[in-house]
Amino acid sequence: MGLRGVSIIGIGSTPFGILEGRTLKEMATVACNEAIKDAGVERSQIQAFYIGNYIAGMILGQETIAALVVNSLGLNREIPSTKVEGACSSASIALRQGHLLVATGVYDIVLVAGVEKMTSASTEKVTQALASSIDMETEGLTGLTFPGYWALIAQRHMYEFGTTIEQLGMVSVKNHNNAVFNPRARFRDPTTLDEVMSSRLITDPLKLFDCCPVADGAAAAVLCAAEMAEDFTKKPVDIIGIAQTTGYSSLYEQAQLVTLPATVSAAKKAFEMAKLKPEDIDVVELHDCFTPAEIVDAEDLGFFEKGKGGWAVEEGITQVDGRLPINASGGLISKGHPVGATGLGQAYEIVKQLRGEHENQIKGAEIGLTHNAGGTGAVCCVNILKRR
Amino acid sequence: MGLRGVSIIGIGSTPFGILEGRTLKEMATVACNEAIKDAGVERSQIQAFYIGNYIAGMILGQETIAALVVNSLGLNREIPSTKVEGACSSASIALRQGHLLVATGVYDIVLVAGVEKMTSASTEKVTQALASSIDMETEGLTGLTFPGYWALIAQRHMYEFGTTIEQLGMVSVKNHNNAVFNPRARFRDPTTLDEVMSSRLITDPLKLFDCCPVADGAAAAVLCAAEMAEDFTKKPVDIIGIAQTTGYSSLYEQAQLVTLPATVSAAKKAFEMAKLKPEDIDVVELHDCFTPAEIVDAEDLGFFEKGKGGWAVEEGITQVDGRLPINASGGLISKGHPVGATGLGQAYEIVKQLRGEHENQIKGAEIGLTHNAGGTGAVCCVNILKRR
Repeated sequence: MGLRGVSIIGIGSTPFGILEGRTLKEMATVACNEAIKDAGVERSQIQAFYIGNYIAGMILGQETIAALVVNSLGLNREIPSTKVEGACSSASIALRQGHLLVATGVYDIVLVAGVEKMTSASTEKVTQALASSIDMETEGLTGLTFPGYWALIAQRHMYEFGTTIEQLGMVSVKNHNNAVFNPRARFRDPTTLDEVMSSRLITDPLKLFDCCPVADGAAAAVLCAAEMAEDFTKKPVDIIGIAQTTGYSSLYEQAQLVTLPATVSAAKKAFEMAKLKPEDIDVVELHDCFTPAEIVDAEDLGFFEKGKGGWAVEEGITQVDGRLPINASGGLISKGHPVGATGLGQAYEIVKQLRGEHENQIKGAEIGLTHNAGGTGAVCCVNILKRR
Repeated sequence: MGLRGVSIIGIGSTPFGILEGRTLKEMATVACNEAIKDAGVERSQIQAFYIGNYIAGMILGQETIAALVVNSLGLNREIPSTKVEGACSSASIALRQGHLLVATGVYDIVLVAGVEKMTSASTEKVTQALASSIDMETEGLTGLTFPGYWALIAQRHMYEFGTTIEQLGMVSVKNHNNAVFNPRARFRDPTTLDEVMSSRLITDPLKLFDCCPVADGAAAAVLCAAEMAEDFTKKPVDIIGIAQTTGYSSLYEQAQLVTLPATVSAAKKAFEMAKLKPEDIDVVELHDCFTPAEIVDAEDLGFFEKGKGGWAVEEGITQVDGRLPINASGGLISKGHPVGATGLGQAYEIVKQLRGEHENQIKGAEIGLTHNAGGTGAVCCVNILKRR
């Protein structure tokens, strides 16, 4: 199977946050238009469109948004347009579908996007919608939702490895302080460990500042065949590793609580495809929906030995000036988590880093990784991106 | 771009109807297991899974069902699993994604499915969920739902072309009488034009018998590279034409009411790919969500001149013993319309016809076509299948 190289030649994003008065369709349109302009492609050159979205049906009563956005953008209506869903991984799935079809030569230029509008719905409605990725015939019936899910994992990680509540808090402090520089972030105030530790308890051991906020937002990218990329941009970013895997739809099915098997297998596949190892990565955006997720994910991705993730945070390794900067954007914790858009939001941040254009720039970043998990680890996408 | 041939080597389906006590996950699992068994593949040989679903999030609170079904089936969790959505075209989109990835050589064997569980929810909830494919920022706000949408089209078709209410009714009679033979159909009682014409008015000119019923159901297919197909089955069915296009998300945007542009463009592409013309097709399953849809779609697919579809029905051309049998399964009108499953339900019926195994067999059928439309024609998929 001879796949050709695929590059990201254009990116677009709305801010992530409370975007009052901006509709789902409008946000997706804004992000896509920005990506199209950034790429310098003509609308008529776009041959397919994929959009990731998770809960717009449940909280806004709007489905079939791929066609909606094709119409709003004024693209050629003869192209296929598809919504893909894999919980909080939805936008990364859109990226992968686009990648596959360019890599195989089916298309030369594909537009991919992700969008979510969450802040206009009630907390109850959003909480119920987010829980829909859990198996509603089994574990979902227990009333488990995601703060509880990650609290269970955190408790076990603390029990098995001695990870501390302060280490969880340090993830939050780092990500909040990174977001100060990011104009796309929902929370841009710096914070301290004291503030994090004294924030309201949500579900033991997680406090308010250990949890990512809901957000409105959209992000998009234009993909093209690597061999054509420099016709459009001086700064193409190549997708050199990309993988999507399946995990468990319920926590009770997992043999261990301290690892997400879908992350482990997606990372393995993406590194194999890129012919790289974890130590080759310069900058990472990973799925820190809750502070323990950043620790567990960093271990599962192979950056740290299982159980050592908390100490890596404590030692400053994941700070912007550390050996492996993680979530320099502020991550989900501070940038915000518009669930169906997050994966391409991460890609947006990494592309900016690799172009040397990020507001919280990691000096000399050449290779970046995004990690985007959905549900109870039911879906995982890992992408490795490289500047030319 | 050299695409290789792709075959359907296994099919599975639940009955379509009121499947009390059978859950979404269970129905998808049953259909997939039947397709896997029919294909004679090992679970470990399946390299990717796509599932179409439209409204399970909105009416059951269950998303991320691709992973759910991979777990339920006991497939290898390292494979990618993706839910795709394009309103009532969702299952056909799953089929097309699978086709593309086998055709390009990314995978050799892919499982695709579609599922919907509708009859356990209230009519209000289902009606609202189905309307979610309309642009909720514009036309959706008017309260238009699909019976009204197709009534508008029917009125205009009658005005422009003299199509009669009786011709609409004859579609219903034909499809009801076809379903008598189909054990998968929801409605299996024969009917008469009198009964159809005297059924309750829903939205002028549509009566109850002009409307398809909601249903529970799932359908699935195993796809593999055409060159490998005979290793698994003596009766492979080749996908020789396949297309997915985008149309309008609102009726008010369309220049004409009597045609769905997405059907016209999808048919054109599918026939071009198959190097065939409409007169080469032996048997058709098309998207008769309402009786006028069967007439409009048959015209848009190129089987009859625009405006002549009603007369084709009246002349018996679309009967099982006519020149072009349409919806020998009973169609959506009588077989039922579990929205996210319908597209693969159609493929199931056509594969049975081409294998010579259908309960309402069209003699000598060699080439069949499925047509599956979503929303206000926002998405359309057309597939052309051929027996070896």
